[in-house]
Amino acid sequence: MSHTINVAVVQQACGGDKQANLQRTVEAIEQAASQGAQLVVLQELHATPYFCQTEATDNFDLAEPIPGPSTQLLAQAARANQVVVVGSVFEQRAPGLYHNTAVVLEKDGSLVGKYRKMHIPDDPGYYEKFYFTPGDLGFHPVSTSVGKLGVLVCWDQWFPEAARLMTLAGADMLVYPTAIGWSPADDSAEQKRQQDAWFTVQRGHAVANGIPVIVANRTGFEADPSGNSAGIRFWGTSFIAGPQGEILGKAAEDTAALLVQRVDRARVDAVRRIWPFLRDRRIEEYADLLKRFRD
Amino acid sequence: MSHTINVAVVQQACGGDKQANLQRTVEAIEQAASQGAQLVVLQELHATPYFCQTEATDNFDLAEPIPGPSTQLLAQAARANQVVVVGSVFEQRAPGLYHNTAVVLEKDGSLVGKYRKMHIPDDPGYYEKFYFTPGDLGFHPVSTSVGKLGVLVCWDQWFPEAARLMTLAGADMLVYPTAIGWSPADDSAEQKRQQDAWFTVQRGHAVANGIPVIVANRTGFEADPSGNSAGIRFWGTSFIAGPQGEILGKAAEDTAALLVQRVDRARVDAVRRIWPFLRDRRIEEYADLLKRFRD
Repeated sequence: MSHTINVAVVQQACGGDKQANLQRTVEAIEQAASQGAQLVVLQELHATPYFCQTEATDNFDLAEPIPGPSTQLLAQAARANQVVVVGSVFEQRAPGLYHNTAVVLEKDGSLVGKYRKMHIPDDPGYYEKFYFTPGDLGFHPVSTSVGKLGVLVCWDQWFPEAARLMTLAGADMLVYPTAIGWSPADDSAEQKRQQDAWFTVQRGHAVANGIPVIVANRTGFEADPSGNSAGIRFWGTSFIAGPQGEILGKAAEDTAALLVQRVDRARVDAVRRIWPFLRDRRIEEYADLLKRFRD
Repeated sequence: MSHTINVAVVQQACGGDKQANLQRTVEAIEQAASQGAQLVVLQELHATPYFCQTEATDNFDLAEPIPGPSTQLLAQAARANQVVVVGSVFEQRAPGLYHNTAVVLEKDGSLVGKYRKMHIPDDPGYYEKFYFTPGDLGFHPVSTSVGKLGVLVCWDQWFPEAARLMTLAGADMLVYPTAIGWSPADDSAEQKRQQDAWFTVQRGHAVANGIPVIVANRTGFEADPSGNSAGIRFWGTSFIAGPQGEILGKAAEDTAALLVQRVDRARVDAVRRIWPFLRDRRIEEYADLLKRFRD
């Protein structure tokens, strides 16, 4: 395995036509491969609009099994372009049992791993607890030809525990398919704080764990079908950070983008030699991390 | 208890004269109080140079018991100025048993709590494992008239576990006395990455926990007494961040500074309502956080 790998992040706006969205994704995978990418990371729920703005039972029609049509299509694209693909699927596991699931396709097209989103948000505009059962697969990196991928999804990005558990399991990099944006109802100072916080907490995981972080976010405005809110303006700015949290590459806010960036995995070892945090963890004093609150 | 409190951070350069250093600290506490501060946070080992650049047994002469001369002086200053003070002491607990300990003095001068640094670094220029036994008091905030202070020290700042444990124990804010700087041997790009990483990981704790973070760092150049290295240029930039990681105030790099900043504790509740991370932690899946590595 080479020390450097070329990582691509695909940032897209999504319309209502699932096939058209997936077609654009496949084209982006081809384009990424033609630019030398070996790993292509897609955004969360890239096949559809972000349907969690409302709680509507009809939206369960958008779900599909794994393997299923989406993973088949992504597998074909992975094999045709000889790249590893991290995709995102609204998974129907059984009637009434759904997950927000990331899938990993090896460059030969095989489905080599999946991760079911463990931390599920629920706040105005992001009613995910209605749709997604919290994942039951735990935090385990997926071994691929480009390294062990610590795949997490969106809301997981706010939880240092998830990043740490992936690192402790030997992940070579953290990968976050994401769908996050602004409420137009918030003022610009609040919007800036939210976006900065999002960068900061994920770059913080890179620092605390000495590990690269790859984030694919959605872009574009999506109206709230219920009309109850002002919708979501997804803030794009997909990015790739190195193991000191340094930004290696970043996409724009308001347009579809393909970000291709060389990531030097040898930096992980170099950084952890000067900042050996894993050496100094006081694991015998961490038991209360397993509590809800220490009261 | 009022929703807003005025927090002061004292950033100093330290010379070889312990009494002179402490005298400057007392003057800074007076000045902070005259500017309305209710809480004054001092930097790590503010009474002395950062002696851990070398391993020299004579340096144990700098240690003192708790309570002892330094805590007595800080208690007087706290009482005289009616402020809560977080100080830092090289603690001699017994012959051959030393700690790097933060102390909390209430505004009536009583010593209301101490925290013994739990994570101890050891890397070129920071030979702390020679001097400091890892703390055995665990992670517990100190209750004061200005709130529950989640006092941690320097190297702790790189560990999300420490910030989380303090938050789960009901800390109202995190407080980090610190001594960190650049090696002049590193190039400017590496220096910038290190300082950015330091800001980022601590601001990340603010975000992940929805909690203000108060950081007091040392400034000034200190030569390596052994002559083996190029010394340390402490990078100052003490700062105060709000519960979204937003920088509320920040000192300069290369001068002594007194930073006084109003912190609105009501923001904690407001931020945690929109980002209720504590609600969604998957505690039943975190057991491996207590492992050294998951191999």
